Amino acid sequence: MPELSLLQRRQRVLGSQSPLFYDKPLHLVRGEGVWLYDADGRRYLDVYNNVPCVGHCHPHVVAAMHRQAATLNIHTRYLDEHIVRYAERLTATFDAPLDTVMFTCTGSEANELALRLARFASGGTGIIVSSYNYHGNSASLAEVTTALPSPEPFAAHARAVPIPCLYQAAPGTSEEQLAEQYAAKVAEAIASLKAQGLRPAALLIDTLFANEGLPRVPAGFVNKAVALIREAGGLFIADEVQSGFARTGEHLWGHQAHAVVPDIVTLGKPMGNGYPLAGLVTRNELVEAFGRSALYFNTFGGSPVAAEVGMAVLDVIENEQLLANARNVGAYVQQGLERLAAKHALIGDVRGKGLFFAAELVRDRQTKEPAGLEARRVVNDMRERGVLISKIGAGDNILKLRPPLVFGREHAELFIDTLDAALSAL
Amino acid sequence: MPELSLLQRRQRVLGSQSPLFYDKPLHLVRGEGVWLYDADGRRYLDVYNNVPCVGHCHPHVVAAMHRQAATLNIHTRYLDEHIVRYAERLTATFDAPLDTVMFTCTGSEANELALRLARFASGGTGIIVSSYNYHGNSASLAEVTTALPSPEPFAAHARAVPIPCLYQAAPGTSEEQLAEQYAAKVAEAIASLKAQGLRPAALLIDTLFANEGLPRVPAGFVNKAVALIREAGGLFIADEVQSGFARTGEHLWGHQAHAVVPDIVTLGKPMGNGYPLAGLVTRNELVEAFGRSALYFNTFGGSPVAAEVGMAVLDVIENEQLLANARNVGAYVQQGLERLAAKHALIGDVRGKGLFFAAELVRDRQTKEPAGLEARRVVNDMRERGVLISKIGAGDNILKLRPPLVFGREHAELFIDTLDAALSAL
Repeated sequence: MPELSLLQRRQRVLGSQSPLFYDKPLHLVRGEGVWLYDADGRRYLDVYNNVPCVGHCHPHVVAAMHRQAATLNIHTRYLDEHIVRYAERLTATFDAPLDTVMFTCTGSEANELALRLARFASGGTGIIVSSYNYHGNSASLAEVTTALPSPEPFAAHARAVPIPCLYQAAPGTSEEQLAEQYAAKVAEAIASLKAQGLRPAALLIDTLFANEGLPRVPAGFVNKAVALIREAGGLFIADEVQSGFARTGEHLWGHQAHAVVPDIVTLGKPMGNGYPLAGLVTRNELVEAFGRSALYFNTFGGSPVAAEVGMAVLDVIENEQLLANARNVGAYVQQGLERLAAKHALIGDVRGKGLFFAAELVRDRQTKEPAGLEARRVVNDMRERGVLISKIGAGDNILKLRPPLVFGREHAELFIDTLDAALSAL
Repeated sequence: MPELSLLQRRQRVLGSQSPLFYDKPLHLVRGEGVWLYDADGRRYLDVYNNVPCVGHCHPHVVAAMHRQAATLNIHTRYLDEHIVRYAERLTATFDAPLDTVMFTCTGSEANELALRLARFASGGTGIIVSSYNYHGNSASLAEVTTALPSPEPFAAHARAVPIPCLYQAAPGTSEEQLAEQYAAKVAEAIASLKAQGLRPAALLIDTLFANEGLPRVPAGFVNKAVALIREAGGLFIADEVQSGFARTGEHLWGHQAHAVVPDIVTLGKPMGNGYPLAGLVTRNELVEAFGRSALYFNTFGGSPVAAEVGMAVLDVIENEQLLANARNVGAYVQQGLERLAAKHALIGDVRGKGLFFAAELVRDRQTKEPAGLEARRVVNDMRERGVLISKIGAGDNILKLRPPLVFGREHAELFIDTLDAALSAL
């Protein structure tokens, strides 16, 4: 029998449906900073991964993990200084009254817990999400997911609302009108829940709308939507799994761009630079009230190792000034993408915040017909050229560009030049 | 303002309801093998924690984590040798046809995913659990939980069945009769679901029944219950979060004692010796069919770091012969507990498997009245005497004794002597 390839062995033990990137999957063996290395020693510029937000295998984070794992790694049913110090430092980065944290291991667990809290606090069950959302892999989240296939039918207690984008708006529509039109859809969704006898519990959104393709959301839309859910007795849950930890270059948290304080903020992916660390931050009285009715315990959540890793990530964000870097290098990348848009008609729109960009590929700048096949070819060609990106959006035609935050100008130049070449070769 | 204590600071940032062990919580700073050290340098024998199954901060596991975290830590959308090798080694420890693994980060996520798979495969929604169960902290699990408070009402699609215990059986009842009586309750639960128009999806149990207090389950009960759920079209999910990884001293997996192969086995706590690593093992066709309808992805699940940590745990279990140790030292502890039972009337029953014991405290050996207050005093007194244990069961009167698997005879002696002293001092 011929020896099985790594891909065949993987398919045998993990199943053939476990998702892989690229038509020709990449076999990685090493990571460092913004670089990933394959089994043949070739290096790739990582313009996709936000989990290693301070860079792959950052020595300060690795050292913190190692030191604490060699000293004490235990659950939160004992007193421990590390988790208290980390919780104090983390909550201090949020606006009042967000002062209390519950730790989990994954963003899915954080959003799952947020829904439990919101339902408890509101007495309702209704959930409003965006019409192209993904917030996690649990059953409660799968049944409100619209961006990925799941066997669970869309929940009767959920409503999906479209997110407005100025790029896609009908000509002549003002920003204010667009915000009003789409806020009206949130109001309709709430009315529809109520008509069915369901009390709204939460509006669950990522205020950067990453899965939706970073739409150019009109000013005021998020604030109006939040006002509506609160008026209806529901809570506003801001999912910062993608937009948090300095990603936007403006604030540490994505929701801060909207000058609205959420009721619950959920955290995940970049929080531990790859160590499974996540959680939610909310008002103290919400945690206290929930805690009087529920014994919530997460065995690995909030361990001393998780705390030291989380602390080390915050250290690096501060010490290496990654918020300013996201802003400065982000602006540089934005200019580069705009130059490419001027050259390549395929790029219908370029938008971004900090070090998170979307380049929407269209077959026709008038009709804005999604160029999904072209996007796929670009993503795969970029991989062959040594630059890792991905794509998102309902039409699968929006390039998703989201490098580790230690991305520098030299990396930006390499990325832009390679994208230019890939677009020219189409 | 006076400086806040660590406990006060913790309550402020984590909430006052976040659970802590002991009337006087323990402030830990270091762990090694079966020992935990507090902030004053005092050491405690750990007779409670199963997560550090190969011992606190085992150097082989810490080194594997460190080495891999410094090299590559990425999700499973790239090819990676570590996760394939670990999946191959892990699945090889299961009986056919259990050959495929899906990785998660926590036992809650594993059980949550198992329910999604079972519902998909069976086309049903009904869940049968034990009447004193806890399988995780998600909404779907909270609504079938009976052992912990949760604000979610017990689900209309769930039924809780009592687990038989020979110690609690009416005098004159044979083991076979008891198994039949309680299997009949499973049949009733299934009939009750069907009467409500609900198709059964799964029987979800820990075959060691750890939360229930390690009852002396009559031979044949588990097999009968499994046959009934399968006959009704549902799946058998064996939760090995507590009973797996050599804990029972007989087999690597607790369910193997019943000579029945589950449809899905869920794994958690000890799997990564404290690193957030969990998952489920099932038949390939189940994963394939689910995967064609659902895109399941777990960002941190199955990372190279998780794989290397999991591999290191299996190494230590093998190299240090911890299955045999659990059997041998377990038998020695069992004898010690039986000696104490002969001496102290408070101990109504002693039972265990490998290195997992329950000592049921009763006020009267005839009425078997639960001695919950006494159990609490013993647990707290043991802590003062430097030995960490806990308690379980519906009456909160069953001492829960579950040390790391590197527990030796000298530790067993210290534990038995200390328990003797604590019981004598009551």
